[in-house]
Amino acid sequence: MLKNPATKYRSFKPVNLTERQWPSRTITRAPIWMSTDLRDGNQSLFEPMNAERKMRMFKTLVQIGFEEIEVGFPSASQTDFNFVRELIEGGHIPDDVTIEVLTQARDDLIERTFESLRGVPRAIVHLYNATAPEFRRIVFGLEKSGVKELAQSAARTMQRLVDATPETHITLQYSPEAFSSTELEFAKEVCDAVFDIWQPTPEHKAIVNLPATVEMSTPNVYADQVEWMHRNLARRDSLIVSVHPHNDRGTAVAAAELAVMAGADRIEGCLFGNGERTGNVDLVTLALNLYTQGVDPGLDFSNINEVARTAEECTQLPVHPRHPYVGDLVFTAFSGTHQDAIKKGLAVQKPDAIWEVPYMPIDPSDLGRTYDSVIRVNSQSGKGGIAYLLEQGYGVVLPRRLQVDFSSAVQRYTDDSGQEVTPSQIWELFQQEYVHSVAPVRYIGHHLSEQGDGARINLTVEINGSRRVLSGAGNGPIDALMHAMGVPVRIQHYEERALTQGADAQAVAVAEMAGADVAGSAFGVGIDANLVTASIRAVISGVNRAYARVGAAAQGGFFDLAMKDEDEQVGV
Amino acid sequence: MLKNPATKYRSFKPVNLTERQWPSRTITRAPIWMSTDLRDGNQSLFEPMNAERKMRMFKTLVQIGFEEIEVGFPSASQTDFNFVRELIEGGHIPDDVTIEVLTQARDDLIERTFESLRGVPRAIVHLYNATAPEFRRIVFGLEKSGVKELAQSAARTMQRLVDATPETHITLQYSPEAFSSTELEFAKEVCDAVFDIWQPTPEHKAIVNLPATVEMSTPNVYADQVEWMHRNLARRDSLIVSVHPHNDRGTAVAAAELAVMAGADRIEGCLFGNGERTGNVDLVTLALNLYTQGVDPGLDFSNINEVARTAEECTQLPVHPRHPYVGDLVFTAFSGTHQDAIKKGLAVQKPDAIWEVPYMPIDPSDLGRTYDSVIRVNSQSGKGGIAYLLEQGYGVVLPRRLQVDFSSAVQRYTDDSGQEVTPSQIWELFQQEYVHSVAPVRYIGHHLSEQGDGARINLTVEINGSRRVLSGAGNGPIDALMHAMGVPVRIQHYEERALTQGADAQAVAVAEMAGADVAGSAFGVGIDANLVTASIRAVISGVNRAYARVGAAAQGGFFDLAMKDEDEQVGV
Repeated sequence: MLKNPATKYRSFKPVNLTERQWPSRTITRAPIWMSTDLRDGNQSLFEPMNAERKMRMFKTLVQIGFEEIEVGFPSASQTDFNFVRELIEGGHIPDDVTIEVLTQARDDLIERTFESLRGVPRAIVHLYNATAPEFRRIVFGLEKSGVKELAQSAARTMQRLVDATPETHITLQYSPEAFSSTELEFAKEVCDAVFDIWQPTPEHKAIVNLPATVEMSTPNVYADQVEWMHRNLARRDSLIVSVHPHNDRGTAVAAAELAVMAGADRIEGCLFGNGERTGNVDLVTLALNLYTQGVDPGLDFSNINEVARTAEECTQLPVHPRHPYVGDLVFTAFSGTHQDAIKKGLAVQKPDAIWEVPYMPIDPSDLGRTYDSVIRVNSQSGKGGIAYLLEQGYGVVLPRRLQVDFSSAVQRYTDDSGQEVTPSQIWELFQQEYVHSVAPVRYIGHHLSEQGDGARINLTVEINGSRRVLSGAGNGPIDALMHAMGVPVRIQHYEERALTQGADAQAVAVAEMAGADVAGSAFGVGIDANLVTASIRAVISGVNRAYARVGAAAQGGFFDLAMKDEDEQVGV
Repeated sequence: MLKNPATKYRSFKPVNLTERQWPSRTITRAPIWMSTDLRDGNQSLFEPMNAERKMRMFKTLVQIGFEEIEVGFPSASQTDFNFVRELIEGGHIPDDVTIEVLTQARDDLIERTFESLRGVPRAIVHLYNATAPEFRRIVFGLEKSGVKELAQSAARTMQRLVDATPETHITLQYSPEAFSSTELEFAKEVCDAVFDIWQPTPEHKAIVNLPATVEMSTPNVYADQVEWMHRNLARRDSLIVSVHPHNDRGTAVAAAELAVMAGADRIEGCLFGNGERTGNVDLVTLALNLYTQGVDPGLDFSNINEVARTAEECTQLPVHPRHPYVGDLVFTAFSGTHQDAIKKGLAVQKPDAIWEVPYMPIDPSDLGRTYDSVIRVNSQSGKGGIAYLLEQGYGVVLPRRLQVDFSSAVQRYTDDSGQEVTPSQIWELFQQEYVHSVAPVRYIGHHLSEQGDGARINLTVEINGSRRVLSGAGNGPIDALMHAMGVPVRIQHYEERALTQGADAQAVAVAEMAGADVAGSAFGVGIDANLVTASIRAVISGVNRAYARVGAAAQGGFFDLAMKDEDEQVGV
């Protein structure tokens, strides 16, 4: 077992927050979204994006509807610098999109950053320095005062450069790095000092970004920290409070949601949670979480598969099959009870009604995904999923008792193979089981004639390989057929449907046969363009399957009547 | 853009909870863990596990330390039934492990479930039925009273079977399915009715499991729901309150943590978040979140890679590279500033001290992972990471100014290639740049002799292809060398270190050359088993690189002295 962890790790400090507000709030409108796919996302890749992939990602972000996009760290990388220039000089930035660039708190880097922006009409310039105690002590060897002075000095340099760049509408942003582990009073002190220099106004706000650089605690603590800042920052009405959660504890989405309840106006993150280590918060999940609560996220994921494939190609990282909303498996139910409920829910869901399908928090078609992949069948599946797949894929509607009967056949098959079974395999199995049952009786042909109010049939079959013509009469073709065959079973239930639409539709007939010696009941299915032929085939198949279910003793006399000379057949 | 979502989706209802307690709580001990990898996890796979993979997963779960393991749904699948029998008859269940089985609320299925348990000393039997309104209306067509009667009837059957099975210590568990969307009063009513039949006691508790069958809301709402139940359930002291969060909104880990703060005693989930759709809550992340807070999770992930590979093989699903704690990339930093801080943090981290490395919430070695993969270098990386890799991989410690100098060479390389650069590529690049610089001066050999208090050198080199022997004297070998070469640069800084330990250690010498005409300074590095030879090589390399940095005019006279006839050399 593990060493005693108490000796090595420290629990986080709760926030002393009186009259906490956020747990009683709900989110009623979308925050401002800021995509850092091209910066925080990009810097954490095995292979950072080249110029072509960067441009492709940028255009995808614009298409989704992001209005704030952090495009790089131009002072740290020539590739990033060149990309910012290409965006500006190539006219790639739409009027409703503002690009953002990140800079460290060093004069030469700040100057280089502003240089990268020359000629852009609007931009956000994002300054950060580390304020957390472990950074002060271990990384920089600075006291609190030194850290604050560093931020102030950089803020002054930025203000000077803003003043020297009147042609660009610049929004200034400041992040106390590792906010999540910074003492709140000190975070406030540094932020207030920076904004004292920048002097934002309610008309021209600055952004204060509170990064969970490393996620340090349960998400309620981050919400407490954000609410504390929201309530205590000076100049709150001149600030946009932004959050930037990382996912080290797997709770970044929750942290962002609770932070918005706690007063945050804006969220920085990446598509599908890309970013350093465990990633930035996933903006797709956040946006669609709003969507399923009836709040318009203002982002368009109506073709989510395309967005996912673009992100995968740009980042060279996969989207997990269980990723909320987008993973290959998230609209899939294998379990029988789930399939059953989904099938029923889909059947009663009206197009304009509130979405209310069990086990499905969102309509896949809202994301450009289809129902086809919703229900899949393996050894854990039940009749509902199987029936759904046959209906969707092949237009076959199974009576409920046949669903039950067939599901055991499928389960025997999947228990043996241990694998998922595809719709076409199910269809194949279904035909093998119910349609192509030709022993002992194989249907060859028939001739039907009217007889009074009823019908008379001449049926040509092979029974155990010998050809016979059987005749019978009845109040209809099926009744005539049963008399012709003269077997000790009866038709317990019978139904027939068109398999496809139109004049050339195939008919599917289902016959459920029962008899004193038959264990349970036996289903036969017939498929034919001619609905009478389909019925006859269904009954013959059912008779064959009933025959297989009677004891050896009873099988002896089963076809007695049919095996008589044809002249002796009696129509009733 | 999207259709107006307000017409189609409904916001969740907040819980009317007065004097909410959970936001002020912290988690100070581990909950009871229940792994449903073999049930909820297994039923949602493309390929459910076969008997061999099931057994492998079971043994892995036991090894990790799970004491409650849901092993299947025996009434729904013959494979599951057989597996339960194999566990019992094969004696695979350790004394401190209790297996759990799931059953629907139908008498024949309950009976079959108990049949699967015959002979086991301990078991948890888990009954569920759907209580949520959409299930009542759409799936079952039942009123509240019908749903409650169904649960009561099944509970009575179970009690009868428990009474008939005195040889097994059975703990009963009940789940109101889709608790997350069930009216709280009705959830309580059904649960209370079931426990009225089972009559649990503080000594022999029953389990009430509150599944977020589908995650419906921000995680604080689930916490409110759990706190409400915790405060309102009858017989609370005779119950273990359990949660079973799914991850449809990407907040299952948060929901589970907040639920524990709200009063839950037990969590059901899967390794790495496997399970229906978006998965069950990830028990690995939950456990390690506790660990990094100084709380012993009671589960052993000291070889997390092995657990991950087993899970991947059993489920045939990947673990994502950014999955908390276990993903391939989560202990990796590409960004220069991150690498810098991590390098400094690792350097000062003492083995027995509180873990405090920036950007690293956990010591990778606690999970059986190594530092090797922590720092990787691409075009976004800086000097810190590069220096770290050279030191770790090749034992070369670079002076800080050389780190800065070399990082631009690496960045040019990665900007060109657009790819991550491996430690061996960095090493190769380093040697090309600083060690193998042989133009215009190539070192051939030298002879050193004492001269008074100083040294005299005879140095054999090729200069632009012509062989020369240069002589010089000085207060030591380097001084003598500089006099012998007579070039217009000086040694600004010099240091030398052993590359490896022991008598056969190689020496690495670093010389930083400066001169009036040299832009910046020029570094040369020499590596040799003989430390004098290493120095001479370093200086010659530095001279070559300084030569490359002087203007064409100054290059003309650079080697004037050295190119004179050797007899005319003057040692000073």
